[in-house]
Amino acid sequence: MQLAHGAVETPIFMPVGTQGSVKTLHPDELDLLGAQIILGNTYHLWLRPGHELIRDFGGLHGFASWDKPILTDSGGFQVWSLAKLRKITEQGVRFQNHLDGAKMLLTPELSMEIQAGLGSDIAMLFDECPPYPCEKRYAAESLGLTTRWARRCKDWVSENQPRSGDGPQRHFGIVQGSIWAELREQSARELVELDFDGYAIGGVSVGEPEEEMFRAIDHSVPFLPEDKPRYAMGLGTPPQILEMIGRGVDMFDCVMPTRVARHGQAFTLDGPIHIKNLEFERDSGPLCESADPHVARFSRAYIRHLFRAGEILALRLLSFHNLHFLLRLTALAREAIHDGNFLEFKESFTRRYTKA
Amino acid sequence: MQLAHGAVETPIFMPVGTQGSVKTLHPDELDLLGAQIILGNTYHLWLRPGHELIRDFGGLHGFASWDKPILTDSGGFQVWSLAKLRKITEQGVRFQNHLDGAKMLLTPELSMEIQAGLGSDIAMLFDECPPYPCEKRYAAESLGLTTRWARRCKDWVSENQPRSGDGPQRHFGIVQGSIWAELREQSARELVELDFDGYAIGGVSVGEPEEEMFRAIDHSVPFLPEDKPRYAMGLGTPPQILEMIGRGVDMFDCVMPTRVARHGQAFTLDGPIHIKNLEFERDSGPLCESADPHVARFSRAYIRHLFRAGEILALRLLSFHNLHFLLRLTALAREAIHDGNFLEFKESFTRRYTKA
Repeated sequence: MQLAHGAVETPIFMPVGTQGSVKTLHPDELDLLGAQIILGNTYHLWLRPGHELIRDFGGLHGFASWDKPILTDSGGFQVWSLAKLRKITEQGVRFQNHLDGAKMLLTPELSMEIQAGLGSDIAMLFDECPPYPCEKRYAAESLGLTTRWARRCKDWVSENQPRSGDGPQRHFGIVQGSIWAELREQSARELVELDFDGYAIGGVSVGEPEEEMFRAIDHSVPFLPEDKPRYAMGLGTPPQILEMIGRGVDMFDCVMPTRVARHGQAFTLDGPIHIKNLEFERDSGPLCESADPHVARFSRAYIRHLFRAGEILALRLLSFHNLHFLLRLTALAREAIHDGNFLEFKESFTRRYTKA
Repeated sequence: MQLAHGAVETPIFMPVGTQGSVKTLHPDELDLLGAQIILGNTYHLWLRPGHELIRDFGGLHGFASWDKPILTDSGGFQVWSLAKLRKITEQGVRFQNHLDGAKMLLTPELSMEIQAGLGSDIAMLFDECPPYPCEKRYAAESLGLTTRWARRCKDWVSENQPRSGDGPQRHFGIVQGSIWAELREQSARELVELDFDGYAIGGVSVGEPEEEMFRAIDHSVPFLPEDKPRYAMGLGTPPQILEMIGRGVDMFDCVMPTRVARHGQAFTLDGPIHIKNLEFERDSGPLCESADPHVARFSRAYIRHLFRAGEILALRLLSFHNLHFLLRLTALAREAIHDGNFLEFKESFTRRYTKA
């Protein structure tokens, strides 16, 4: 995938930099991790420090000193998950923000304008994400709104021609439709008809069982063009990511690796561990046999000590490691796909990870 | 100064790694900073994770993955400042620790044994630090105890011959005597008589006015050998450090640079700034014109945003910068001493820093 700030190989995991930094990490470490593209959250950056300020500092690339690709979400999901007193109308979403409770209105046009100010390589269209579970009628109406908003986003983009660095900003539509196959198909077809640069599957990882999540993917992917990237938003565990790569998904993002890190959890090839557990008190081994030297130079005993003592270095090392684990996983998946043995790789990884 | 884990140029500032990590930083960043020696706190590491565990991991060097010199304090000062229900006897200090309130006893011999387990290049003798202000009689009696404890430390060292890596561990005595010139002289003479590898001036930065602090230095330094390092414990601001270098001090440590960083304060050549202030909202300049590229690539506006948003990267950048500022300051002081223009350098730096 060729973007304004460079090429991105797929399948790829995108570290999340909600407020303009991937939590606990310096951009030098993102380079060390081999991160090819990171995410910024439109809702957070709009509220603080504001997209106009960021635009004046050369967009999010200049402001955060990151010169590789960036994807921004539309802000819709955060309004849904963080804001209060949310009211959806045809025009957009009215809400009170989670910082100071101020009343605000986010519309498709404003979401596009904010993302244009952030100057991301890929901007997501403003959508409505139905909760899980929801009535089919609600899902159908919501889907209609998402399509009409997609058209308004497209109109804004046609008129304003937003840029990212030296190239055009790319725009991805978001397939909704909750758990209903025919609604997913309808949503995908309507968006493809509007012709975007890529397509995401939204409304997943919102509390539904794992099988429903995979079904939502399966009900969407066949109706999306083969030659454009497909992105499953907000996912997932290491085995879920492999499962979805197998089902045709190219891009992933999730706050989980850095969030669980801050609670002491580390991915390992044998499944996740909690570093604060007593069993690691005298463990002289590295966090994981696949850990990067940046982390592997320290023993589990040392990282456990730092974590228990409340030292920030523990959060850094665990965050770095969990991102390294997922970036390595998607790199190995690319290699396996290239070598024609992806299914074998997926099964062997998952068997060990889940101790199945 | 040649130590078991390498040479240290003086005058030098030593970043403090209380619990086995210099707060927020990775050892790679300490290398980038040019840190030549760091500090570990005996009291904290004894309580958690314990010096026996650290000894089994190759001492603090192996445990924390740091192969350059380390100095450990004696634990006496932390017992004094952090522990509860402290009771001093000839034998040692009984107290309740600040973590779980357990009753503990720290003696000169145990302090030496813990520091031997930590395997530091320089171990500090166990002393009694009188409060400020205190009665002269108390200071005199306390000084007597410090000398008797120094003798017991020396005996333990002679008997046990502690090592640091491939070389012998070095031991520094601590001059006490509060604000009285004759007590400082007495303390210095008694310690020099016992013959240690270096000498520290203790009982400073305990709440006394700055002039008293400088007087304590002036009352001690003349009685310490010219050919052994002199260390002022727990100091100080950038101008204070230059002032004390001028008065013959070679070594400094202080938690202040990283502590104030976590509260948003950054050193600059024009004095300290508070990054959260509104004046930096749109400031595109670096934190300080002398900042290292690791920090200077970011604008003040960006660091301010990160700090206000509670992002750990802000604490990292400010901590890194403040340590860089002091390490650069002592490096420039060495250069000026070498070039014979130290007084000029000190005055010009201080004039600008204090806006005098």
